[in-house]
Amino acid sequence: MFGIWGHPDATRMTYYGLHSLQHRGQEGVGIVTTDGERLQGIKGEGLLNEVFDEKKLDSLKGIGAIGHVRYGGKKGIENIQPLLFHSSSGSLALAQNGNLINANDLKHQLEMQGSIFQTNTDTEVLAHLIKRSGYLAQEDKVKNALSMVKGAYSFMMLTEKELIIAQDPNGLRPLSIGKVGDAYCVAAETCAYDLIGAEYIRDVEPGELIIIDRDGIHEERFSLSATHAMCTMEYVYFSRPDSDIGGINIHTARKNLGKQLALEVNVQGDVVTGVPDSSISAAIGFAETAGIPYELGLIKNRYVGRTFIKPTQELREQGVKMKLSPVRKVVEGKRVIMVDDSIVRGTTSKRIVRMLKQAGAKEVHVCISSPPMTNPCFYGIDVSTHEELIAANHSMEEIREIIEADSLTFLSVEGMLKAIGRSENMGKNCGQCMACFTGEYPTEIYPDTPLPYEKEMK
Amino acid sequence: MFGIWGHPDATRMTYYGLHSLQHRGQEGVGIVTTDGERLQGIKGEGLLNEVFDEKKLDSLKGIGAIGHVRYGGKKGIENIQPLLFHSSSGSLALAQNGNLINANDLKHQLEMQGSIFQTNTDTEVLAHLIKRSGYLAQEDKVKNALSMVKGAYSFMMLTEKELIIAQDPNGLRPLSIGKVGDAYCVAAETCAYDLIGAEYIRDVEPGELIIIDRDGIHEERFSLSATHAMCTMEYVYFSRPDSDIGGINIHTARKNLGKQLALEVNVQGDVVTGVPDSSISAAIGFAETAGIPYELGLIKNRYVGRTFIKPTQELREQGVKMKLSPVRKVVEGKRVIMVDDSIVRGTTSKRIVRMLKQAGAKEVHVCISSPPMTNPCFYGIDVSTHEELIAANHSMEEIREIIEADSLTFLSVEGMLKAIGRSENMGKNCGQCMACFTGEYPTEIYPDTPLPYEKEMK
Amino acid sequence: MFGIWGHPDATRMTYYGLHSLQHRGQEGVGIVTTDGERLQGIKGEGLLNEVFDEKKLDSLKGIGAIGHVRYGGKKGIENIQPLLFHSSSGSLALAQNGNLINANDLKHQLEMQGSIFQTNTDTEVLAHLIKRSGYLAQEDKVKNALSMVKGAYSFMMLTEKELIIAQDPNGLRPLSIGKVGDAYCVAAETCAYDLIGAEYIRDVEPGELIIIDRDGIHEERFSLSATHAMCTMEYVYFSRPDSDIGGINIHTARKNLGKQLALEVNVQGDVVTGVPDSSISAAIGFAETAGIPYELGLIKNRYVGRTFIKPTQELREQGVKMKLSPVRKVVEGKRVIMVDDSIVRGTTSKRIVRMLKQAGAKEVHVCISSPPMTNPCFYGIDVSTHEELIAANHSMEEIREIIEADSLTFLSVEGMLKAIGRSENMGKNCGQCMACFTGEYPTEIYPDTPLPYEKEMK
Amino acid sequence: MFGIWGHPDATRMTYYGLHSLQHRGQEGVGIVTTDGERLQGIKGEGLLNEVFDEKKLDSLKGIGAIGHVRYGGKKGIENIQPLLFHSSSGSLALAQNGNLINANDLKHQLEMQGSIFQTNTDTEVLAHLIKRSGYLAQEDKVKNALSMVKGAYSFMMLTEKELIIAQDPNGLRPLSIGKVGDAYCVAAETCAYDLIGAEYIRDVEPGELIIIDRDGIHEERFSLSATHAMCTMEYVYFSRPDSDIGGINIHTARKNLGKQLALEVNVQGDVVTGVPDSSISAAIGFAETAGIPYELGLIKNRYVGRTFIKPTQELREQGVKMKLSPVRKVVEGKRVIMVDDSIVRGTTSKRIVRMLKQAGAKEVHVCISSPPMTNPCFYGIDVSTHEELIAANHSMEEIREIIEADSLTFLSVEGMLKAIGRSENMGKNCGQCMACFTGEYPTEIYPDTPLPYEKEMK
Repeated sequence: MFGIWGHPDATRMTYYGLHSLQHRGQEGVGIVTTDGERLQGIKGEGLLNEVFDEKKLDSLKGIGAIGHVRYGGKKGIENIQPLLFHSSSGSLALAQNGNLINANDLKHQLEMQGSIFQTNTDTEVLAHLIKRSGYLAQEDKVKNALSMVKGAYSFMMLTEKELIIAQDPNGLRPLSIGKVGDAYCVAAETCAYDLIGAEYIRDVEPGELIIIDRDGIHEERFSLSATHAMCTMEYVYFSRPDSDIGGINIHTARKNLGKQLALEVNVQGDVVTGVPDSSISAAIGFAETAGIPYELGLIKNRYVGRTFIKPTQELREQGVKMKLSPVRKVVEGKRVIMVDDSIVRGTTSKRIVRMLKQAGAKEVHVCISSPPMTNPCFYGIDVSTHEELIAANHSMEEIREIIEADSLTFLSVEGMLKAIGRSENMGKNCGQCMACFTGEYPTEIYPDTPLPYEKEMK
Repeated sequence: MFGIWGHPDATRMTYYGLHSLQHRGQEGVGIVTTDGERLQGIKGEGLLNEVFDEKKLDSLKGIGAIGHVRYGGKKGIENIQPLLFHSSSGSLALAQNGNLINANDLKHQLEMQGSIFQTNTDTEVLAHLIKRSGYLAQEDKVKNALSMVKGAYSFMMLTEKELIIAQDPNGLRPLSIGKVGDAYCVAAETCAYDLIGAEYIRDVEPGELIIIDRDGIHEERFSLSATHAMCTMEYVYFSRPDSDIGGINIHTARKNLGKQLALEVNVQGDVVTGVPDSSISAAIGFAETAGIPYELGLIKNRYVGRTFIKPTQELREQGVKMKLSPVRKVVEGKRVIMVDDSIVRGTTSKRIVRMLKQAGAKEVHVCISSPPMTNPCFYGIDVSTHEELIAANHSMEEIREIIEADSLTFLSVEGMLKAIGRSENMGKNCGQCMACFTGEYPTEIYPDTPLPYEKEMK
Repeated sequence: MFGIWGHPDATRMTYYGLHSLQHRGQEGVGIVTTDGERLQGIKGEGLLNEVFDEKKLDSLKGIGAIGHVRYGGKKGIENIQPLLFHSSSGSLALAQNGNLINANDLKHQLEMQGSIFQTNTDTEVLAHLIKRSGYLAQEDKVKNALSMVKGAYSFMMLTEKELIIAQDPNGLRPLSIGKVGDAYCVAAETCAYDLIGAEYIRDVEPGELIIIDRDGIHEERFSLSATHAMCTMEYVYFSRPDSDIGGINIHTARKNLGKQLALEVNVQGDVVTGVPDSSISAAIGFAETAGIPYELGLIKNRYVGRTFIKPTQELREQGVKMKLSPVRKVVEGKRVIMVDDSIVRGTTSKRIVRMLKQAGAKEVHVCISSPPMTNPCFYGIDVSTHEELIAANHSMEEIREIIEADSLTFLSVEGMLKAIGRSENMGKNCGQCMACFTGEYPTEIYPDTPLPYEKEMK
Repeated sequence: MFGIWGHPDATRMTYYGLHSLQHRGQEGVGIVTTDGERLQGIKGEGLLNEVFDEKKLDSLKGIGAIGHVRYGGKKGIENIQPLLFHSSSGSLALAQNGNLINANDLKHQLEMQGSIFQTNTDTEVLAHLIKRSGYLAQEDKVKNALSMVKGAYSFMMLTEKELIIAQDPNGLRPLSIGKVGDAYCVAAETCAYDLIGAEYIRDVEPGELIIIDRDGIHEERFSLSATHAMCTMEYVYFSRPDSDIGGINIHTARKNLGKQLALEVNVQGDVVTGVPDSSISAAIGFAETAGIPYELGLIKNRYVGRTFIKPTQELREQGVKMKLSPVRKVVEGKRVIMVDDSIVRGTTSKRIVRMLKQAGAKEVHVCISSPPMTNPCFYGIDVSTHEELIAANHSMEEIREIIEADSLTFLSVEGMLKAIGRSENMGKNCGQCMACFTGEYPTEIYPDTPLPYEKEMK
């Protein structure tokens, strides 16, 4: 999710901004722009460079723009954000990261009153709430709408005249603002600023609503009861290593998670290897602290895109691999310490352990740079149901056996908090949401609160 | 380049084999298969997963197949290999890696005799030589044709009844054979075997010609005056880290190049960082030997595909980046040792040094894990003309100034040979071609020998 | 516009039904089907066979279906009908031929109440009126909505459980019902029944609303003040020659218009030729009555599709033609009677007259098988504004001079009524709308009533 | 087949020229142009407007061009003409209408000598013969090659410097030259000249070879033993009504065939109807002479393109039609005289007779405006094998029964010659090939002479 206001080539800036955020969603992408007079949008399924070409970008001139990449969610091009709505009183475009936990109830109520929905997104609920709001000023309509939704959301809205952004009262998903020349920009991750040559200004606060228009930036609040509960998995797995959240660099945080893990673990190995790409930093940190050589024991096969043809069951059994290859000469005859960032269902771990052993590894010791996941996430990270979470249903020893490892270690919750190092005065858990590890959810959860996505995380 | 004979799903095996070789060429891909009765082929521009889908793979049933990925060369789908020729006396498909240095002379002569060429490839010259050969047996025709060409080539040919492969008399490009079940397979790099679950057997010898058919494998020679002159750049830059050439693992060779470089260099630094992807191994080796922390100081932006929209000159000047991003928090205020595998024209190095300095690096020390390139390559690696090679035209100090580094070090030729560690009894230079560093070419070169490709290497 | 209920292959029947109606709109096409449980739709720009292939048809299984071809209207795939809306209380799909003259007022009011529109069609206004209706039964909701709209409309609506159709109170656009096996079908023109092997039952009455579901067919009325004012241009130009409206065959009506014209006109000629395709029947009738040979003096170039490349101005001036070619040997040295169905702006007539003269015609006498058009149409036929209608702004002699004809004759209003031959007891004008000839509109017209389409008719 | 030389927009002129010839082949199209320096070509499967768009046309600048539309023949884009061959001594592009009856023998011989073929066309045989010819001048090479081939061919060849055309010694296929401004153009049918604003000059003579270059037009002969044997089916069925062959207009010839048929036949009817499109002229002529009203009893469904989805067997049995619809009101209760141009296998006639009867026709009398076809064509018209020709295997009465007609009449051979009216001093059969009616072939036929095409004519 990226937005910009006040730049003569807002469209291309958004294209490059989204490029740096492509890892947050590869299933679809959309950009809506305004030239001050009207909104125009293009969206499609697939990666940024599958959806946009020079001609399409050129057709979207604008001084303001917002863009979004889709991660999971319901299929269908209409569900790709930003959502764009035209009406005689002006157009608006909306994009949102996260999950509105009372969206179904709100939608049902609106339909009973005659509203017609175009998509299956919770974001459209916000659009109808805004449109039906009796307030006159645009920002009052938005505040009114936000007062009715619950859950995790980083929110952006573009009209002909302004860019409005908001962060949910628990600050569950990262959102920050930057500046490039005279233009303000907004991004889900700070790596976007480096890529487009912008300067990072600050993170958006929980409960904050910011309006950016020709008169500059206006900072307001729509909720006063704000707390910090940043998603821990952003540090562990989701964000790019060159992003910072809350002033902490992700690569550094991961390296520290690996170093802390090396201190907590008790295992002998000849080589350390990380599961690419997200566990490389942790593995390097582990190797450095443990004094064991770090090696490329696993190679990621780039070029496995959306349209890649998966091997048949038969070929898979014959040993055809897809995403990862072991490096035989590196692991042969060695005691391998394999560092990974997390275990969800255990199937990936099992496959990698087997792969390493088939390539000749003498022992495989699995070290995970986060605690066991025992609870589903309702806030936008796609971590399966309670039933599918291996750590919710098995003991450590059982998991070790299932994944066929010679040993298995998870990082402790305390070790994790210490390694990431968010300030203690941010409140509970140093201002992190750790619901997937501890079950303590920062918001209400309803009996029928939907899981955000249909597919598994890895 | 990948081939297989005797497998019930030869097509898919070739698809996955090529997948592991995609780094060797991203501009086009083709597969030709035989079911024992006829040859069929599909090819197209772009990556494997852009050219092939389930339906196309299913339409290419076969027990034997060859495939090729294109790196550089003349545009046009007809120039994508394998080339497929039908005739009343049987069909044949050909693929080749390398460069035939007397191709133009041979082509001119054939045209004067009434041959009509369909492509601009040197591979088609081989097809006409084979077709015009007076010999009766297929392998004699091929030997006859190979006796007339000069240069570097790994060669594959598929007919309805057999798979024939050959390696040029200097063994300039890697080629090896493996086995999967009862089927034989042939690949440009051994990483293909791990990915498809095959077992590596041996490298093909210089001057060797091998026929694989329903009766098994027949090993012959078409040239007796063979020497070993394996391309050094395969170790330094071109091959995948999980491949082995001559029994030496590429990642290990690169790590050793980095270690050797750390011994030869005299420079102080706070962090070591590698230029992704090819220099990571060398950087890790350097860090390990030098005792300096290895960090992710540069992030490669995945998703920069063939269709990615490049930033305009204006946006580039505003700081919009494309392939690489610096990690500000990692390099800020630090003395950065930046390890790269080679310098061709110097433009990339200069861009990266600048990027690191703009991100706050106090000093940038460039360490190159190979010697200066002073001579063009005629054997298939695309390293520009003599005029463009920065090291052919400038002193070390001049290069350092041009790339704006605080210091610049190249690995010595002796250090390189030692680090790679090919056996000394392989002859001159331990059996490596080092023409680009030393100017000693293992074959004749003519005044008008064409450079193999039109575009620069990086 | 075609619909069917109760057929095991409703989708394909609709495909073939629409095929016979393709002449009514070539800019876009959509089909929505129901299998009794849910609605599914596919639509796209272009012709039926550009939008649908086997795979898409197969994906749309259904026992009920409606389809629509687009003629003019606002661009954008979202504006292609049928419009499909999902909600928790059930889905509905709507299609409409004609023009709602108070659509803008209704839309504005609905938006003020918080409704969000997805399209620029007047059909969507009906959807919102239906959804907001307080009635419980589906047909009551529809009747309620229809009571609020004014204009010309043939209307179809599909839900999971029924097909509902309605005809506006003036019966301006043709709509009829047929039967094929046990299934009922509905079509804008009766030619659809012949093509799909169905039996024509009867025309839908003005103000009638018909519900077709598993219990059969239910005939109701939503308006009691119904009159017959069938669009005359359907007979003259728009419908297919093999369709019948009000029991009168179109080819026969046109031939009679030609015969009547031959009686009214006073001109000498050697050959009669018609402007293909719509004027062929009239020309044949004219030739028969006048006793002058009918010849192919003009050939229509088939293959001029949506994607055909128009000649540049320069080539057009050099004589490059596109849609029509003259047959030199047929017209050379002859006095040609050129029969056409209507003149809108006069540019086409002028081009054809010139073309015939350049091909050697000695004289060209233009005979039009309908009266002069002096008033714009607000009911769905795309006949330009008042300013563009040549007959609204020029005398007969001026028009003749502009189109460079040797003589010009229009059919009289009385002759036209007599030739078409609708029964006199159908009321005023034998039950025909002749607003474009006489200015007597059968409905209210508002100062800002929009013209239905943006583009000219021919 | 269309060619032009000396026009600044040769490409677009060829595009429009081919547009007028699209009826001669709908399966593929290609254009090759030269700017005087090099040849460039684009081709593809489908119609002209499916293969070309503005961008492609713009990329093919040229002062000379040739183009071809494919009718039948082997599938595969490489087989679409013009064929384009590059070589160091210059490029050439070839296109041909007709069929070379000794192509297989020549191809076999060339392959034995080492030639590699790229296509399955007989046209490529000509290319190899030209390339292998020992003569120095381009026109001598072409004459040399033409001296070795037998059969029916209109031939065009484009090089950087000239356009060469030739007509086989029997003049079996139409070919003529025209002029537009200073440019010469060549077309398979004269209708092309009217469409592009060119002036017809003359037909190319049998055995003639014409070179057009910057110095103008050079008329030569490559064969002195020329006769006139123009394909009769060009008049009856294949050519466009607005074309002339040998000075005779096709529409007029067909109308005369219908008039002659009316004189020969002895049958009572109420209405005359023609099978669209090719039989309309004959039907009008028949009606005029017989004094029976001509009516549209059958409507052709336009929009049945290459990608149209055919009805399933089941739907066809239920009465779903595709290409033709009957006009119920026109034929109901009538004795219908149905005029068609020819009967090949009889299946189409049977389908139409049935269709008319199901629509209510009391009697259907089939009148064919050509004699019975009893022999296959080897010269490029795709009329099945001897086994499939209904008239080769059944008596008149048997055919009548098979097609379920009330009566059946064919035109006499003498009547046909008289109606077409080619001059008697053109030699045998007034200079027409009537092999399909009489079995007298104007060239040698070998035991294994291949039938030109794989599919049936209609």
